[in-house]
Amino acid sequence: MSRFWSELARGLEPYVPGEQPKVADLIKLNTNENPYPPSPKVMAAIDGFDLENLKLYPDPNCDSLKQALADYHQVERKQVFVGNGSDEVLGLSFLAFFKQAKPLLFPDITYSFYPVYCKLFEIDYQQPPLNEAFEIDLQAYPTDNGGIIFPNPNAPTGRLLGLNEISTLLERNRDSVVIVDEAYIDFGGESAIKLVNQYPNLLVVQTFSKSRSLAGSRVGFAIGDAELIEGLERVKNSFNSYPLDMLALTAGVAAIEDKTYFESSRQKIIDSREWLVAELEKLGFDTVPSATNFVFSRHPKHDAEVIFKELRKRKIIVRYFSKPRIDQYLRITIGTQQEVEALVVALKEILGAAKKTKSSNVSTRIAETLV
Amino acid sequence: MSRFWSELARGLEPYVPGEQPKVADLIKLNTNENPYPPSPKVMAAIDGFDLENLKLYPDPNCDSLKQALADYHQVERKQVFVGNGSDEVLGLSFLAFFKQAKPLLFPDITYSFYPVYCKLFEIDYQQPPLNEAFEIDLQAYPTDNGGIIFPNPNAPTGRLLGLNEISTLLERNRDSVVIVDEAYIDFGGESAIKLVNQYPNLLVVQTFSKSRSLAGSRVGFAIGDAELIEGLERVKNSFNSYPLDMLALTAGVAAIEDKTYFESSRQKIIDSREWLVAELEKLGFDTVPSATNFVFSRHPKHDAEVIFKELRKRKIIVRYFSKPRIDQYLRITIGTQQEVEALVVALKEILGAAKKTKSSNVSTRIAETLV
Repeated sequence: MSRFWSELARGLEPYVPGEQPKVADLIKLNTNENPYPPSPKVMAAIDGFDLENLKLYPDPNCDSLKQALADYHQVERKQVFVGNGSDEVLGLSFLAFFKQAKPLLFPDITYSFYPVYCKLFEIDYQQPPLNEAFEIDLQAYPTDNGGIIFPNPNAPTGRLLGLNEISTLLERNRDSVVIVDEAYIDFGGESAIKLVNQYPNLLVVQTFSKSRSLAGSRVGFAIGDAELIEGLERVKNSFNSYPLDMLALTAGVAAIEDKTYFESSRQKIIDSREWLVAELEKLGFDTVPSATNFVFSRHPKHDAEVIFKELRKRKIIVRYFSKPRIDQYLRITIGTQQEVEALVVALKEILGAAKKTKSSNVSTRIAETLV
Repeated sequence: MSRFWSELARGLEPYVPGEQPKVADLIKLNTNENPYPPSPKVMAAIDGFDLENLKLYPDPNCDSLKQALADYHQVERKQVFVGNGSDEVLGLSFLAFFKQAKPLLFPDITYSFYPVYCKLFEIDYQQPPLNEAFEIDLQAYPTDNGGIIFPNPNAPTGRLLGLNEISTLLERNRDSVVIVDEAYIDFGGESAIKLVNQYPNLLVVQTFSKSRSLAGSRVGFAIGDAELIEGLERVKNSFNSYPLDMLALTAGVAAIEDKTYFESSRQKIIDSREWLVAELEKLGFDTVPSATNFVFSRHPKHDAEVIFKELRKRKIIVRYFSKPRIDQYLRITIGTQQEVEALVVALKEILGAAKKTKSSNVSTRIAETLV
């Protein structure tokens, strides 16, 4: 703490992103990245970009990318906002729509950046709990609120809400903005983008970091009523005029245009997910139904943190959250088929070792930590 | 205005960046970009980057770029903060340091983004006026403040303060953060970075958009006491964990490492500036002494807005601010030598046409607008 920090800065509890280890040969299943590279058309577009142009500012309005997204999602360009990853889009949205007298609502178990934005922008919030099956119960959300946000599918649970449930919420919640954060929607859900023309208070946020294999390029976007987008533009143009650089814009346009590659890589991930879920079940894990590129899974007889540490020793990194209600779960990103197979081999070894040492009562280091 | 915007969003007056026209064959002297391309080493580094890695998140800590900047400026890595252009660095700094009970101080004529950040983050401010020669008079800044920020050299005037004046300010202003915004320092000034180890409340902000020819990559940074940097990191990690994408990081490191190219391109710009200033003087312009890659110039007998429009007709774009005290000035970016020569030819034509029509009293369209 420095005396030069603002009181606001002193009170912050920053978001902690998943680790980006600088070690080789890791199987990295901790940050929900796509295991497959970006579309070859993305590579070709970047290779074809005249790098001399980097001397100029990018288009502050990002028209090329907005147009590509508008065409893809069949909306108007003025219904599209783009930003430096969906995190920036979300942050700016909190300022534009959620800085209200009434509290913002989001689930108790959800993307852990939401309360961080609230602290930063001094927004009051309430967290209606997920039910026991880790489902968001939108019926329990009071309409007397300053806004509602939830991921669909939710993170880190992976559970999906149907569009009918979202419509039902929007029918009764007309006076505040509802943001559906669809970072993972392409792995098994139906996007609420098809509802934006019906509900002027609905904003749908997506990212290129997951299904488009472009986490390294930082591209996110929002689609909604043109007036919501205008509000976002006002806030963005009061903070940073050019958040997307030229190469990110170039990559984004090429990625959205390659539908064939997109369909094939997301299908591979869905297939590996289904395979992994079945294998985990054989090992005795309970897995929350997932519509994402990760699974949220627990073993009734083995401590999650111990498994997490044992996997790490074997150079496999998954994510573990030491938080109430979910501290017995692991969040495992779906890697390539080879990677999830290696994970299953390692889990068999870890669980087997634990059983053996338990039954033979030999006190090894592993056994101790596994109790 | 939408009923869904927050009260804050309604009250904003967003920054208006210089135009990025999508027309070919323009001579673009309006946004202080570098007319020379980035270093060939930047191009080589991007070409050599394995684009498959874009599937992964970038390093949220940007260690490679911080280290390159630390080495270059002879400070420790923990004294370096990097962001998505210096605009983002400044925005985050306002939240980290200037959100105080007392007002922030900055000049009345300066970078027009400062009051925009203040609106966005609800920061009170005062604007001590530049003197008649457009100099910042730091002696006139009261120490009872919530912070001080000024560009050095100042924009859009181009005037430079010496380090002795900045030291004098820092000697008496010990209780609030002083930010020196050095976007243009490489074109003729001495950086205050050499003072950061002496003054724990000094933060120096720079950009890769001007002297490094990387406006299209969005890279900015700040150097100061490690505690100030930690405060900035807290705010950044409460807003957007990964504001710099992988290719921007790659470009930034390569740019900072190529000292030879940097020296040669900035010298070319300085030479063209001195040439242009002399030519403008011959044409009767008064030019504020510039230590930047632009000049701020007025003609005592010709209206600035008219010259601006006439230049535009000739496909030369400069910047005109319709604001008190400076509405008779043009801000002209230093282009290539060829571009500034074309500008001088156009100005001769515009001024000559005006004189001729005036003396012969023939009412042409140009003459009308030039009165």
